Amino acid sequence: MTAFQELMTFQRETEALSGIAERLGWDQETVMPRGAADQRAEEMAALESVLHARRTDPRIEDWLARAEATTPAEARSLDLVARSYNRTTRIPARLATELARLVSRAQGIWAEARANEAPAAFLPTLEEVVRLKREAAACLSEGDLYDALLEDYEPGATHRQIGAMFDRMRPRLVALREKVLGAERRVPVIAAGFPEATQLRLARIAASAFGYDWTRGRLDLAVHPFCSGSGQDVRITTRVVEAEPFNCLYSTIHETGHACYEQAIEPAYLLTPLGRGASMGVHESQSRIYENQLGRSRAFTGWLFTRMVDAFGDFGVRDAEEFYAIVNRVSPGFIRTEADELHYNLHVMLRFDLERALIGGSLEVADLEEAWNARFEADFGVKVDKPSHGFLQDVHWSCGLFGYFPTYALGNVYAGCLNQAMRAAVPGLDAALAGGTAKPATDWLRENLQRHGSLRAPAETIAAACGFAPNEGPLLDYLEAKFGAIYGV
Amino acid sequence: MTAFQELMTFQRETEALSGIAERLGWDQETVMPRGAADQRAEEMAALESVLHARRTDPRIEDWLARAEATTPAEARSLDLVARSYNRTTRIPARLATELARLVSRAQGIWAEARANEAPAAFLPTLEEVVRLKREAAACLSEGDLYDALLEDYEPGATHRQIGAMFDRMRPRLVALREKVLGAERRVPVIAAGFPEATQLRLARIAASAFGYDWTRGRLDLAVHPFCSGSGQDVRITTRVVEAEPFNCLYSTIHETGHACYEQAIEPAYLLTPLGRGASMGVHESQSRIYENQLGRSRAFTGWLFTRMVDAFGDFGVRDAEEFYAIVNRVSPGFIRTEADELHYNLHVMLRFDLERALIGGSLEVADLEEAWNARFEADFGVKVDKPSHGFLQDVHWSCGLFGYFPTYALGNVYAGCLNQAMRAAVPGLDAALAGGTAKPATDWLRENLQRHGSLRAPAETIAAACGFAPNEGPLLDYLEAKFGAIYGV
Repeated sequence: MTAFQELMTFQRETEALSGIAERLGWDQETVMPRGAADQRAEEMAALESVLHARRTDPRIEDWLARAEATTPAEARSLDLVARSYNRTTRIPARLATELARLVSRAQGIWAEARANEAPAAFLPTLEEVVRLKREAAACLSEGDLYDALLEDYEPGATHRQIGAMFDRMRPRLVALREKVLGAERRVPVIAAGFPEATQLRLARIAASAFGYDWTRGRLDLAVHPFCSGSGQDVRITTRVVEAEPFNCLYSTIHETGHACYEQAIEPAYLLTPLGRGASMGVHESQSRIYENQLGRSRAFTGWLFTRMVDAFGDFGVRDAEEFYAIVNRVSPGFIRTEADELHYNLHVMLRFDLERALIGGSLEVADLEEAWNARFEADFGVKVDKPSHGFLQDVHWSCGLFGYFPTYALGNVYAGCLNQAMRAAVPGLDAALAGGTAKPATDWLRENLQRHGSLRAPAETIAAACGFAPNEGPLLDYLEAKFGAIYGV
Repeated sequence: MTAFQELMTFQRETEALSGIAERLGWDQETVMPRGAADQRAEEMAALESVLHARRTDPRIEDWLARAEATTPAEARSLDLVARSYNRTTRIPARLATELARLVSRAQGIWAEARANEAPAAFLPTLEEVVRLKREAAACLSEGDLYDALLEDYEPGATHRQIGAMFDRMRPRLVALREKVLGAERRVPVIAAGFPEATQLRLARIAASAFGYDWTRGRLDLAVHPFCSGSGQDVRITTRVVEAEPFNCLYSTIHETGHACYEQAIEPAYLLTPLGRGASMGVHESQSRIYENQLGRSRAFTGWLFTRMVDAFGDFGVRDAEEFYAIVNRVSPGFIRTEADELHYNLHVMLRFDLERALIGGSLEVADLEEAWNARFEADFGVKVDKPSHGFLQDVHWSCGLFGYFPTYALGNVYAGCLNQAMRAAVPGLDAALAGGTAKPATDWLRENLQRHGSLRAPAETIAAACGFAPNEGPLLDYLEAKFGAIYGV
């Protein structure tokens, strides 16, 4: 075997073991008995220890030094292995262990502080998380600390570039939300009962309409919906709120977007460095375009309305037009995960600015709540009424996930670009959606983006699919046109 | 850390990883998408390779040489680690790989041969399995080849000892079956429909009645029911045949026996060499005593009959007395897994005698079918009508599981002993069973046997619980009394 082949054989086993860890994560969130937590933690720790030893195996350095790529795909594979090896080995074992212990403990402390509306109980822990993440970032790069962390989620992106883009987006979003909230039209909320079994049946129909391959996946319930796995085994989860049907339905379509991406990657890339989505941002572009640009489109909601009347009977919505407005109802709220398409990016930008200030050192953890509340009032026009509606709402910081938040909004920006390119390239898309299938869209996304996995860097992945460099323009145009039409503003 | 502590720390991680492999096995048989088989095979192979490297890690030999036990439990732990290490390292890597590949392939060949009633298509593969298992046995021991293999399932047992016991049992069982089948009483079979959801609800009630801890387990459907896991996460599976309710119900109670054993082991033994059941035979004693001596008792079936009438309405059975006879209906059949309590051991003895002849070299694979059919006619009074009703019916030999079969009958013998001791020690047992709970019995079994895990060798485990050395007498007495009474013979 050549050095390249030896490295890829080793890497393949590591990927397989890492797939097992992901499968255990799925098990834990869906079917694991509640009394099994301690034992599972020990099992996961044992597996993580095996994985860490493999990822820092000194033979990798030797193989990398000797391996020769004969194709661009091989060259990209070597780059990705080198990148991962360098990042993993630069963090001293002592720091990695300390961080792992801390964030595991921190999540419990955060959850309790949030439940008790007691920020002070969480601040010392968060300070410690920030301190260790800054230390880790300094190990990873001699440059900007926040960029060093961002690299884990959106390789190649910089906070300056993202920040500049967000700064261009924010005024247009704030202006649009003010126009929409000032409009005369009042969109009602649904008030009816939607039985769980029927919601789940409809969720399955929706996942099928978006091309989810059930022979290589399954749908289960989870507290926080997620997608897990790759290749031949990509599972999605959803949740059901009996008072309204959209939580289940659009969570399912969102996770179907993530899942279809992983299911569509070239089988030859399976268990290789190219075999997963290109980045968190690119992944989110798939879940978002499925959920929003396609799933909340006039065409698809028209079809969905008929299916829902079939499934639930009269649920108090007059016609497809009103249903479309309800699905896209704009309402300012404290909680990011419940936000509409228009407000969502404002939530993300707030977190992005605060977390880069925390990591950059210009904001102290002690001042975080005040900074959050001031910014929230500026962007949303409402005062935060309690910490669980404010800076304690998201789990991310307790997990040390600094650099993760911006990928949510990047995903929306990418989805905007892809939607523009796809609509130009695919005739008859709305007719298909109105008939209950997203196939022309998902075929286009599969062919132009999904099947390539990590073959290209994230921004290049989007550019190659769209034919232009990703930018915020298409998303903002789309939002202004859509919500302008719905609200007549 | 002392050498003992280092060894146990290492061992604990190995046990945790091995628990993960077991969990993946559960996933594969219950929830895995059918398109995921190839990827899962690669994941399992990667994990098995990690486990094999750990089980043959040369540091174990060094730790064993230096470790000192300060308690009997520590001494037993060292013995078990040494035993496993010696067995694993004695099989050359080349042979282990060859065997693993062969049995993986052989199961498919066996399944096809069975489906096509084409024994000739399976014989060359079976010859190869027997050849490699003999080679492995010769690596494991300089003594008897079959005993070397038996050691994997029932450590400390010998085929001479088991064979002598079976030879004492067989005439009494054959005589009993002839008396019963010659009796005037004809027990009907049930002919009704039993909806799956109701069967599963009843199965859950039954598992609860036998003390299954749902906070540390769950029940799912599987093609072949099994129990999987230990400690905090012990899952059971069952199957449903809509035409009759006993497959689901008694599979569930059987697996509940296995599960309660694993759930009851001292928490301090979890992930140590003592943390699993003592042997296949001892494990089977728990599943069998739950299923048969308790679950098919007059007292429990009386309660069950009432529950079934509640659940299914009138299903054509007159009263609890007739129901008891139906649950214990004796009927000669070709298939081991469908056999009644009386015939079951005869099925096992047949396989035991044939497989020790195969491994011992006195029977050729080419002559196996003829030998099977002759023995079956002698013990069951019926000619085998096709290979799938004969020597092709069980998967075991294709998997190389030589030495496994006798543990089924050993389990029955042990269950007979435990039943005798338990009934002497626990007053009011039948009254509790008649009231729908096996608690006094399961408490006794937990206290006297289950909680000790692998602290003692298998036969000692039974002897310590019963107060006498295990022997076939109690089981035969029980069977003769029970079926004599039901059939009036």
